[in-house]
Amino acid sequence: MKISQRGAIPRFIVMDVMKAAAEREASGAGVLHMEVGQPSTRAPKGVVEAAKQALDGDLLGYTLATGIEGLRDRIARHYQEFYDLDVSAERICVTTGSSAAFLLTFLAAFDPGDKVAILRPGYPCYRNILGALDIEAVEVPVGPDSRFQPTLDMLDAAGGADLDGLLIASPANPTGSMLREDELKQILEYCREKQIRYISDEIYHGITYGTEVATAAAFDANAVVINSFSKYYSMTGWRLGWMVLPEDMLRPVERLAQNLFISAPSLAQHAAIAAFECAEELDGNVARYARNRELLLAELPKVGLDEFAPADGAFYIYADVRKFTNDALDFCARMLEQTGIAATPGNDFDPVNGASYVRFSFAGSTEDMAEACKRLGPFLQAAK
Amino acid sequence: MKISQRGAIPRFIVMDVMKAAAEREASGAGVLHMEVGQPSTRAPKGVVEAAKQALDGDLLGYTLATGIEGLRDRIARHYQEFYDLDVSAERICVTTGSSAAFLLTFLAAFDPGDKVAILRPGYPCYRNILGALDIEAVEVPVGPDSRFQPTLDMLDAAGGADLDGLLIASPANPTGSMLREDELKQILEYCREKQIRYISDEIYHGITYGTEVATAAAFDANAVVINSFSKYYSMTGWRLGWMVLPEDMLRPVERLAQNLFISAPSLAQHAAIAAFECAEELDGNVARYARNRELLLAELPKVGLDEFAPADGAFYIYADVRKFTNDALDFCARMLEQTGIAATPGNDFDPVNGASYVRFSFAGSTEDMAEACKRLGPFLQAAK
Repeated sequence: MKISQRGAIPRFIVMDVMKAAAEREASGAGVLHMEVGQPSTRAPKGVVEAAKQALDGDLLGYTLATGIEGLRDRIARHYQEFYDLDVSAERICVTTGSSAAFLLTFLAAFDPGDKVAILRPGYPCYRNILGALDIEAVEVPVGPDSRFQPTLDMLDAAGGADLDGLLIASPANPTGSMLREDELKQILEYCREKQIRYISDEIYHGITYGTEVATAAAFDANAVVINSFSKYYSMTGWRLGWMVLPEDMLRPVERLAQNLFISAPSLAQHAAIAAFECAEELDGNVARYARNRELLLAELPKVGLDEFAPADGAFYIYADVRKFTNDALDFCARMLEQTGIAATPGNDFDPVNGASYVRFSFAGSTEDMAEACKRLGPFLQAAK
Repeated sequence: MKISQRGAIPRFIVMDVMKAAAEREASGAGVLHMEVGQPSTRAPKGVVEAAKQALDGDLLGYTLATGIEGLRDRIARHYQEFYDLDVSAERICVTTGSSAAFLLTFLAAFDPGDKVAILRPGYPCYRNILGALDIEAVEVPVGPDSRFQPTLDMLDAAGGADLDGLLIASPANPTGSMLREDELKQILEYCREKQIRYISDEIYHGITYGTEVATAAAFDANAVVINSFSKYYSMTGWRLGWMVLPEDMLRPVERLAQNLFISAPSLAQHAAIAAFECAEELDGNVARYARNRELLLAELPKVGLDEFAPADGAFYIYADVRKFTNDALDFCARMLEQTGIAATPGNDFDPVNGASYVRFSFAGSTEDMAEACKRLGPFLQAAK
């Protein structure tokens, strides 16, 4: 019976780690969750309250494919408030998480065989979604020498004007590293000259630790900006994100969204409007991430983990574990079994060098982070 | 700047009709909604209650890519209760509406250039999603002679063993017509012999008017069954559906779901478990659809609309309007403007003959249906 080649994309390993952790929990053993890239907090109170009101007051049917007007307007206003930038609500498209935004952007911008540059290490689904859509993912290897972000020379080496698209996340997953504003502008200029469609993954905006954040929307009307309610707004399971679209992609994306998604979840859309008024609670989450980050940056070197990517933003430490293993999959499986710490093997983010890296998410509680540091010591000692 | 060819898929016209209707309502004029294929009712009370409980008690983070265990188990039990059929929960994959189920099925089963047969008229997104994924949609024209369902001869004419897949909805959209059990078995046998992957769209199961309903899962372990909480369970905007998968597609679909969707909306998943205990309220909705259907089948011929597809199930009348127009787009636009009745031009469902058809959804209130019949008379009189 017919089955596809493209279904043979790699699994998203972190989802399988999550499964193993869930099985461990079901068996009664505890887990310190440092695997999944999601806040350990619920949606802010204002969002929960707004959701209850929508449950009582709204039909919760399909919405327009690009989202309800109230939410698109509120997102547009957010660009004014957060970035001091005028963005018309017409350019906002609400999506079923940033996952849908990537799918829609790739379909609207690229045809089979087109080349899109992505960073390695990077979010694995970029590569896997591009692959499923028969778009060639061109990997740009980045490392500590360039703070895990690309230089123009690296983009040249990846094909330069032969590229059709370039996708960069800042803050990045799994490294947390960020593009400075001058670097972003330089890359956008490079893309403009070479007619490369720039896609800016900004889903970790709001979760930074002192580094200034810049949106591609401020500098280039041709760039696609992708954002999400999952991270800063602490609403992963609500599956809601948005895009700021260039004019020429508005109608193609709308048509694709009508056909592929119909609409984003209605309840989440109504509730998310309130998320923008929950800064106090949300900034409290970020303050906790900041404490966790400080703790890990101080404690991990003491137990032998002393090489990481710069954790400028997001809630990840991408640690070089070469001293302990060249098989991060096995390493993480043993770590879960022996210490109850769930973390994600670098293989997910980097098919070439990832087996020597582990991503630790510090989105959990500070107590869990402290406990993890304690347990890591003996485990790493034995692993050496 | 790079933009794709495949973004040039047709719009989903009903979404644009919905937009025009929303604009009319915003201007203060009333609309009788017979355009969108969604219940006019809210989710059943039990679901709303369960959602509120989940809002208070659950983190609502990402779930496993195939859905939460409680929901997969409950869906499996539904096959026992509704079809008297053993289906293992392992074979259930929860999806972000049936939209995601189609996308995942197409990606997991078919490669670019493969041929999948679909009916014309039929749900337009089949064709448009297939097109976006570079799979060839082979149209099987069906009409009143075969009750808008295909015969084996028609499948032969569409390519027979050259086909890689066949997708049939029963009850169908826009026609409401159903495959009888013996017809379904015959087609499944045909597909088995010719190694054609059968995809059964069963999203209107539960909404039938006396015709016995059969699931492909009962007769063929290689068939993909797609269902949804949108129609019978009255939960369109919650974006939740499911699949019953053949063994060989479990892991490919899981991998694709991990990468393309991460998970279906968490709140909807928790709440949907309760949907199966809301039969009384939901069957009340179906009783109303049945009254609406009786009313339209009696009244429409009196105002001059006397040729329809058999409305065995779902909540649609697909009416031949050839006597009045050969431009259903214009006809529907004028009807909305002059009578306030929003309905969907057949062009959405049939690029060849659809301009002579209009789909009326009778999922609204019986009062709206009666009022629509009144207003249609003078409008059609003038249109003749």
